[in-house]
Amino acid sequence: MKLDRNTLAVRDRDDPLAFARRRFHLPQGVIYLDGNSLGALPVAAHEVLAQSVGEEWGEGLIRSWNRAGWVTLARDIGRDIARLIGAHEDEVVVADSTSINLFKLIAGEVAAVHRSDSKRLAIVSERGNFPTDLYMAQGLAALGGGIELRLVEGDDIDAHFGADVACAMLTQVDYRSGRVLNMRTLNRAAAANGHRIVWDLSHSAGALSVQLNADGAELAVGCGYKYLNGGPGAPAYLYMARSLQRDFPMALSGWFGHTRPFAFDPTYAAHPGIERFQCGTPPILALRALQAGVATFDGVDLNAVRAKSLSLSDTFLALMSDHCAEFGFACISPTAHARRGSQLTFSHPEAWPIMQALIERGVIGDYREPNLMRFGFTPLYLSHTDVWDAVMILNEVMLSGAWKAPRHRARTTVT
Amino acid sequence: MKLDRNTLAVRDRDDPLAFARRRFHLPQGVIYLDGNSLGALPVAAHEVLAQSVGEEWGEGLIRSWNRAGWVTLARDIGRDIARLIGAHEDEVVVADSTSINLFKLIAGEVAAVHRSDSKRLAIVSERGNFPTDLYMAQGLAALGGGIELRLVEGDDIDAHFGADVACAMLTQVDYRSGRVLNMRTLNRAAAANGHRIVWDLSHSAGALSVQLNADGAELAVGCGYKYLNGGPGAPAYLYMARSLQRDFPMALSGWFGHTRPFAFDPTYAAHPGIERFQCGTPPILALRALQAGVATFDGVDLNAVRAKSLSLSDTFLALMSDHCAEFGFACISPTAHARRGSQLTFSHPEAWPIMQALIERGVIGDYREPNLMRFGFTPLYLSHTDVWDAVMILNEVMLSGAWKAPRHRARTTVT
Repeated sequence: MKLDRNTLAVRDRDDPLAFARRRFHLPQGVIYLDGNSLGALPVAAHEVLAQSVGEEWGEGLIRSWNRAGWVTLARDIGRDIARLIGAHEDEVVVADSTSINLFKLIAGEVAAVHRSDSKRLAIVSERGNFPTDLYMAQGLAALGGGIELRLVEGDDIDAHFGADVACAMLTQVDYRSGRVLNMRTLNRAAAANGHRIVWDLSHSAGALSVQLNADGAELAVGCGYKYLNGGPGAPAYLYMARSLQRDFPMALSGWFGHTRPFAFDPTYAAHPGIERFQCGTPPILALRALQAGVATFDGVDLNAVRAKSLSLSDTFLALMSDHCAEFGFACISPTAHARRGSQLTFSHPEAWPIMQALIERGVIGDYREPNLMRFGFTPLYLSHTDVWDAVMILNEVMLSGAWKAPRHRARTTVT
Repeated sequence: MKLDRNTLAVRDRDDPLAFARRRFHLPQGVIYLDGNSLGALPVAAHEVLAQSVGEEWGEGLIRSWNRAGWVTLARDIGRDIARLIGAHEDEVVVADSTSINLFKLIAGEVAAVHRSDSKRLAIVSERGNFPTDLYMAQGLAALGGGIELRLVEGDDIDAHFGADVACAMLTQVDYRSGRVLNMRTLNRAAAANGHRIVWDLSHSAGALSVQLNADGAELAVGCGYKYLNGGPGAPAYLYMARSLQRDFPMALSGWFGHTRPFAFDPTYAAHPGIERFQCGTPPILALRALQAGVATFDGVDLNAVRAKSLSLSDTFLALMSDHCAEFGFACISPTAHARRGSQLTFSHPEAWPIMQALIERGVIGDYREPNLMRFGFTPLYLSHTDVWDAVMILNEVMLSGAWKAPRHRARTTVT
């Protein structure tokens, strides 16, 4: 039996996360299926930023480092994020970008491993990993020391773990397909081979119930501007298990990671705790926006988030089958719940113009090379009827041939 | 003859930069002598940020990468900064923090030098350089390869240049004393020894007439939140002479520095131009604030800035001599104009409580270990009568012994 819109409206009425939608500003006429790329604007961000600009910066000036708590802000937001990823409060700090934080972890981890075994030279990752992760490892390798980035394909990643591996570098949810890796199983396999995994949580934190401690993860980074709603290019975060922090080698050793930054000592001495992973002066305005983004999760149960995410993507799949089966879309995302992230990706030979036609009609997903359409499901602000409306608009775009308009073929630099 | 306030009021009336003060929000009752640590709030920043949050992020969402020009924003602001530091427009980009940008340049420059001469292992710097610069070099050295940070003291820095030097790393204006290094002479000395200098402009750009091209500088970084007024922890910038860009080794090779970031190629290929020094996704909200900060220099002649800066600090020195000579302050800043930056630093055994008493009365300078009081002179928003009022308040604090109040002895983490 086909789903109908009323059935979905009932699901929305009974949605335990319905309250969270009011925490966001969503444009009129838009169904936003790209929160996996840039999270929507939290209503509170306006006021938080106006306050930070006007009061903290404008009136407080330099005094706000103490009075407004700027000195500890990156650490404070780290505590808030810790709950979302199954970490202790003293295991997460906000700093720099995902790329830079990844470099801190892989450079330091390789150095740490080489203290006892300098023959471990490979960093294992997936060829399909998000490119910046691969690029950062390539940059580290270019610095010398014999480090090699080893790219693997296929499902048996752990078959490539071994005695010559310094660390692995994996993204829990694949940016392209949404495929979820089994963090617990892979961490065990890595440990059995005498090395660790550096996890990238950019496409999982805030959409799945990430359990770093319980799943044996010791090193991770993640992005602030996707499911955490921290704003475009928001600062990223870094997680490290307590036991590793004190002795971890520091590659990017800036003054905010010093144990006494304001002593102005010419010799670096790392803070004993997670604070050491701060580098330069923290970006206060961006941190305030991120804080507002993370606050959209206040009182939100991550298990409910995961359940709703799956319910939304199940609905999308069912509606695609009911209403778009004849148009040649092929879902490349895993459909098993355990392997499915919070997005669905479809290939289509005309993916680009079709996505442009959708965006023109307010259904915002995105395009990825070479022929992929991504639809992300953000449980805090998306409803089941949104999903219905989106698929109906796709149906209309395909039936009418509206996507064939010449303007939809023009390529822009990024969607 | 002693200066009087009326004479200074006449100077303010005739000040060719008087118009710029209206571009800033300055708190009532505050004389702000710490713009060398955190620049004041540009009036336009409020509106610029509200617009970026509400329209670009809130309404435009992911579409703003194209529609609002987010993709090229870091490059666009780099062009604006280029004018302030005597560089070509295609030689400056905004990215990351000063610390991170410094790492990009020293790591890459050492790698570039080693292509032809692997015996050049020393990075020469000053023991008194801003600590984070030293820390970043220590982090690079810890990655191996035999790199050594060689710290020197005294005025004959170029005596330490030589055949075993990979690069020098110098700050044009010393954060502690305000002493200015002769960029042209030192660049020539470095070139004669077969290496380059990486310059840190954090305490010079926006206060002096920096002339990178004319003075033969090829590599530089600088801070966005001091004289450029970009907001607390604003993004930093990086300068590289055109001729070096294409072949420069990339240590921190993130996706925004890729020549085609949205091709999602698994192999890094650096952008041929200055864009390569972007790393992760650029921090849009912070960039908008920085853009408003840099715009406070629109139509401003940097030679007039320098002239006013010297006039303000000359005034401060004269007034200190007239009104505070008996209180035991010793100026540790060079007084020769050619060697003086845009700040004056005084040592005093009771520097901490005296500075706290000043701050309580609205005269905001800052304290630096072990016994230093810094007073910064920001020509865009400070007047000669401000300087008069500040010294009179210092005189009152000293005469009355107000600084001896126990509350002024309490130490906070940072001023």
